[in-house]
Amino acid sequence: MSRCYNFSAGPANLPLSVLEQAQRDLVDFRGTGMSVMEMSHRGKNYTEIHQNAQENLRTLMNIPENYRILFVQGGASSQFAAVPLNLFTERKKADYVNTGAWSKKAIAEASRYGAVNVVASSEDTTFNYIPKLPATIFSPDADYVHITSNNTIYGTCYPGLPEVGNTPLVCDMSSDILSKPYEVSKFAVIYAGAQKNIGPAGLTIVIVREDMIGRALDITPTMFNYRTYADNNSLFNTPPCFIIYMAGLVFQWMLDNGGLEAMAARNRDKASLLYQYLDQSELFTATVSGDDRSIMNIPFVTGNVDLDKKFITEAENNNFKTLKGHRSVGGMRASIYNAFPREGVEQLVQFMEDFEHRNLP
Amino acid sequence: MSRCYNFSAGPANLPLSVLEQAQRDLVDFRGTGMSVMEMSHRGKNYTEIHQNAQENLRTLMNIPENYRILFVQGGASSQFAAVPLNLFTERKKADYVNTGAWSKKAIAEASRYGAVNVVASSEDTTFNYIPKLPATIFSPDADYVHITSNNTIYGTCYPGLPEVGNTPLVCDMSSDILSKPYEVSKFAVIYAGAQKNIGPAGLTIVIVREDMIGRALDITPTMFNYRTYADNNSLFNTPPCFIIYMAGLVFQWMLDNGGLEAMAARNRDKASLLYQYLDQSELFTATVSGDDRSIMNIPFVTGNVDLDKKFITEAENNNFKTLKGHRSVGGMRASIYNAFPREGVEQLVQFMEDFEHRNLP
Repeated sequence: MSRCYNFSAGPANLPLSVLEQAQRDLVDFRGTGMSVMEMSHRGKNYTEIHQNAQENLRTLMNIPENYRILFVQGGASSQFAAVPLNLFTERKKADYVNTGAWSKKAIAEASRYGAVNVVASSEDTTFNYIPKLPATIFSPDADYVHITSNNTIYGTCYPGLPEVGNTPLVCDMSSDILSKPYEVSKFAVIYAGAQKNIGPAGLTIVIVREDMIGRALDITPTMFNYRTYADNNSLFNTPPCFIIYMAGLVFQWMLDNGGLEAMAARNRDKASLLYQYLDQSELFTATVSGDDRSIMNIPFVTGNVDLDKKFITEAENNNFKTLKGHRSVGGMRASIYNAFPREGVEQLVQFMEDFEHRNLP
Repeated sequence: MSRCYNFSAGPANLPLSVLEQAQRDLVDFRGTGMSVMEMSHRGKNYTEIHQNAQENLRTLMNIPENYRILFVQGGASSQFAAVPLNLFTERKKADYVNTGAWSKKAIAEASRYGAVNVVASSEDTTFNYIPKLPATIFSPDADYVHITSNNTIYGTCYPGLPEVGNTPLVCDMSSDILSKPYEVSKFAVIYAGAQKNIGPAGLTIVIVREDMIGRALDITPTMFNYRTYADNNSLFNTPPCFIIYMAGLVFQWMLDNGGLEAMAARNRDKASLLYQYLDQSELFTATVSGDDRSIMNIPFVTGNVDLDKKFITEAENNNFKTLKGHRSVGGMRASIYNAFPREGVEQLVQFMEDFEHRNLP
């Protein structure tokens, strides 16, 4: 077995001990004589997996009792429609903050179902910052305010939450959920695709305050209605059982390793290692500066497309995989989620120092 | 490692060799240094997995070139909405055949978006047969006709396809796709949840004729629109990569074992072994008779609820798992999909003979 340093933005690195556990259990889950993939989703063994995953997530994020945890499918992209379909009232009016490609897609989809007010945007400078959001910019009668907490492609992250008063705050937390503590009670809905800090692709977590459930528009497909999941413990139909099992193993790994405070400390340490190097480098530059920097996704460039390309190729050959920036922006991006080991960041910095030494004009 | 005989209706038995392959590759996929679960869905390695799965499915089912294979999420239950949303014209009119619990759910969901005409039903006798469907019962101006080819809960299966003329035929094939050859060109849309004959839960296969793509109603969520998947090779957003990988391994296993003709021969042989025993048993009775019997799901009863219960408990203790009938009908049900070994059916029949001997009055 060999393991590389995998900087993929998602699907992403999983904890080695979790993969090894899944490997041991794959053909025969703890003496049941079957794989988790083969288990009836209504049977005793899977039920325990399902409940444990939920309860461990509740513990990890300190989710209040008046919030439900839903296991859904279809990715954050499906939530781009599910959010307006579930949350629009007769007004059908929402405020969105545009901080990147995913915000834009969320805005486009919500606009198909109602009036979307883009209250702020950082598109003017390729989304390399988070706009200031004074309370006055939000519409007093919006059904909800939507933000994207961390922008996977551009490497920005909200330094703090906006003050939205009594308007429900909805957050696409796909790329920084579980990376640090968030106060769940500040949100009406949190949603996140699994494939960054949660587990493999194929699961979407929705954390929804109970008063947001049961008000969906008539046109909402049953499988997009939060009530369908809330009323049936996410077992209205067959859930993605194996992915939920994997997520449960990841949640357990987080609890065993100190929970979200510890994750945050490790993540900040790993990120500052790379940012510190970037900030003094004469070859590489981080594309985001200041308080808006993500500790999950760190984009950087040399300023020379050919040199970027050379760097990516050499990195690949030295076991540093998937460092290429998103196809929409180019350059490089190091995604260093919870499961990414500190050692990998140390070695990357070393490799970059060496590359810089060899390639400075 | 121990393995049981798992009669689960889905998620269900997977081929042992497939599970073993997945186990070997789990932490380090063929020297890439990462698990399939960790791979970027836009990278070279996953792209190959994605393409192979599609191509092998096309080969297996002999899918014509004017059909697209879509990898979607959300289960057949999501397709209950996606089908009317994608296929309704301005008429918004469809014919449905009601042959069980899943047909009923499909009907209920489609009725939310248009006029559904239930042209035939077997509800009068707890869905234990497939109604006769003369061509004259179908509406000449329906946007489509919807059938459920195999009824997982009741154990019925269409002995032949209805003659619907030029009206597009849509089929929920969740529980018998890949169990035998179907002529794909007879259908406009075929859809199936993965968790019976395809792989683990969390993937839905949609096979759609090209002229059915691009006509979705305005209210259709982007992630329910067939065009979104067709235009982006099912990579508009992150697909359930690991489940697609598993499905690909299952497709390869089928090809290596003779394809669908061979699967059908083995399935017929396994099913007739159990039906033959049931038809001469003085204790057990199959609940479906004649040509409408499923070769995938075989429900049976003793006629005595306590005896059913005793049988299920003793069976569990003898390594025959998940034989309990669906909660809506009771009794027993043996689901014997492609991956279920003949030996398991032989041993079940032996066990039933012994139980009968010990429990006949």
